[in-house]
Amino acid sequence: MMKVELARARALAENGLGALGYADEERKLIAGHLLDCELRGLGFSGLARVLSIAERLQAAPNTPRPMAVLRETGVSARIDGGDNLGYLVAERATDMAIAKAEAAGIAVIGASDTWYTGMLSYYAERIAAADLVAMIASNASPWVAPEGGSEGRYGTNPICFAFPSADESVIWDIGTSAIIHAQVVEALRLGKPLPEGLALDGAGAMTIDPQAALNGAFMPWGGHKGSGLGLVVQMLGMLAGSPMMPGQLQDFGFLVIAIKPDLLVDIDMFKRQIADYADSVRSTRPLADGAAVRMPFDRSRAERARRLAEGFIEVPTAIIAALDDLQKDFRP
Amino acid sequence: MMKVELARARALAENGLGALGYADEERKLIAGHLLDCELRGLGFSGLARVLSIAERLQAAPNTPRPMAVLRETGVSARIDGGDNLGYLVAERATDMAIAKAEAAGIAVIGASDTWYTGMLSYYAERIAAADLVAMIASNASPWVAPEGGSEGRYGTNPICFAFPSADESVIWDIGTSAIIHAQVVEALRLGKPLPEGLALDGAGAMTIDPQAALNGAFMPWGGHKGSGLGLVVQMLGMLAGSPMMPGQLQDFGFLVIAIKPDLLVDIDMFKRQIADYADSVRSTRPLADGAAVRMPFDRSRAERARRLAEGFIEVPTAIIAALDDLQKDFRP
Repeated sequence: MMKVELARARALAENGLGALGYADEERKLIAGHLLDCELRGLGFSGLARVLSIAERLQAAPNTPRPMAVLRETGVSARIDGGDNLGYLVAERATDMAIAKAEAAGIAVIGASDTWYTGMLSYYAERIAAADLVAMIASNASPWVAPEGGSEGRYGTNPICFAFPSADESVIWDIGTSAIIHAQVVEALRLGKPLPEGLALDGAGAMTIDPQAALNGAFMPWGGHKGSGLGLVVQMLGMLAGSPMMPGQLQDFGFLVIAIKPDLLVDIDMFKRQIADYADSVRSTRPLADGAAVRMPFDRSRAERARRLAEGFIEVPTAIIAALDDLQKDFRP
Repeated sequence: MMKVELARARALAENGLGALGYADEERKLIAGHLLDCELRGLGFSGLARVLSIAERLQAAPNTPRPMAVLRETGVSARIDGGDNLGYLVAERATDMAIAKAEAAGIAVIGASDTWYTGMLSYYAERIAAADLVAMIASNASPWVAPEGGSEGRYGTNPICFAFPSADESVIWDIGTSAIIHAQVVEALRLGKPLPEGLALDGAGAMTIDPQAALNGAFMPWGGHKGSGLGLVVQMLGMLAGSPMMPGQLQDFGFLVIAIKPDLLVDIDMFKRQIADYADSVRSTRPLADGAAVRMPFDRSRAERARRLAEGFIEVPTAIIAALDDLQKDFRP
């Protein structure tokens, strides 16, 4: 592992993305997201993602079309992502969700034909900061087996809810698989085995080999209930215009719903209530000999604050070397 | 257990509810819901629920106020449930969600000051049958401990999604606790212990005694992720106007969002896609020596079809005797 100062980490990401052809504003936007992953301790979705983007562009050289709005009303929009990178498409969908929900009280935005949308909480934090409640879901290639199955039928399919608060926003953002795609790709990149019990090979037998897992399927999270939620997210993706079984790293869907609490309750009272509730959960008596109870996202927020204060992140040396290589020919 | 013909079961429920003062139309509506629970094999939420309603009315004699709409727009409504039974309040919210989503494309309805909303899938099936996508959540008294805690902070908090389909609607409806309230009440009523590991007593120690569990807390489902979803549902209940910690069997919230898929995609294509996807999940290669993969709700639908064909349900003899007692003085 290598300590990398935050400014250097940002430059590494931006210059790497520049070498891949992303324009100035796009680079800033994507790098901001990747750096936030690193700050939160999710390195597998951080700087290393630049390498995954490079590989995807090489494997399926895309000439992304400009995004287009296919259907639109005062409470909705359907965006054709034009095979653009998900970070860019999801930002556009988030912008529209906020603007329409502020005007009409509620909005649903679906975006299709995109890939790699990152952490849903990144968009949800923006929506909650605008005093809106958010639900976001994002489907992907069928890497995950449904409960009882040995073939992929849904993506690692995150789902996220966010609530504005008089204190810090409350964010819940989970993946519906036992292991996420970026973790498997990271293991492959670093030549490490997967933990036991999280993936199947192409023949349906348990495996710890990341390449075999990518050829097979990841296990679902949460038994029948969790697997069902993964299927729900795949169908929410279809509502956003994604096909039922997207090809490899393409045709993902992104669905965001934003709601102005004022439609139903007083916004200031609601934000106060959310803040008080979060405190009440944190002050729950712990199990015998157990640690204090946390709210979802508390750990992420603390990790981010700590790294921001320290001024650096830690990144595997192999990732830094590969990024250095990638940007060798790029002059910003 | 006693075999009870469907017509007799319905009469038992309707007459019992009549004895509790529910009017003719209300009786039919509530009994229809309870009978559907029985048909689906969820007896703990079926006929026995009439006894639980009787106990609640006795413990907190309510003079339910008429329901009232506190806030309303073309895409939303906030209903004050007036301490009316949840089955009645949720039906009203469902009606409004369908009407508003059909007119405006999307709608969010929140209802507060209610109790016992039953199976969310019951309402979700109606919404999906109207060619709308549904999300429904319902919070309750803080019977469930968050992950790592030993005191209740959220209800057994179901959440449900439903999708219209060219074949049968797809329904996913789960509770976010390790055991649901009705199961604990049923165990208490029948003098049976709970399964191990699902509940804590008032001091925070594991218990299998249903009364101790009711005085303590139920365990969450799904570790940090599942517990977080339970918290999310509690906050969605607050968005519907519920207080953060509802008292015992009162002040529950019910939130329903309905979306017309046409806002984003072609409805016929979407329904075809959902049907094809469900088939593709069912035809997933099973794990070695495993059973066929099921879609959520497949088992419920099969159980319902079987009992409808057989024409009877099976109910604990003690429950039938108590219902007979309850309706002794009622003449419909």
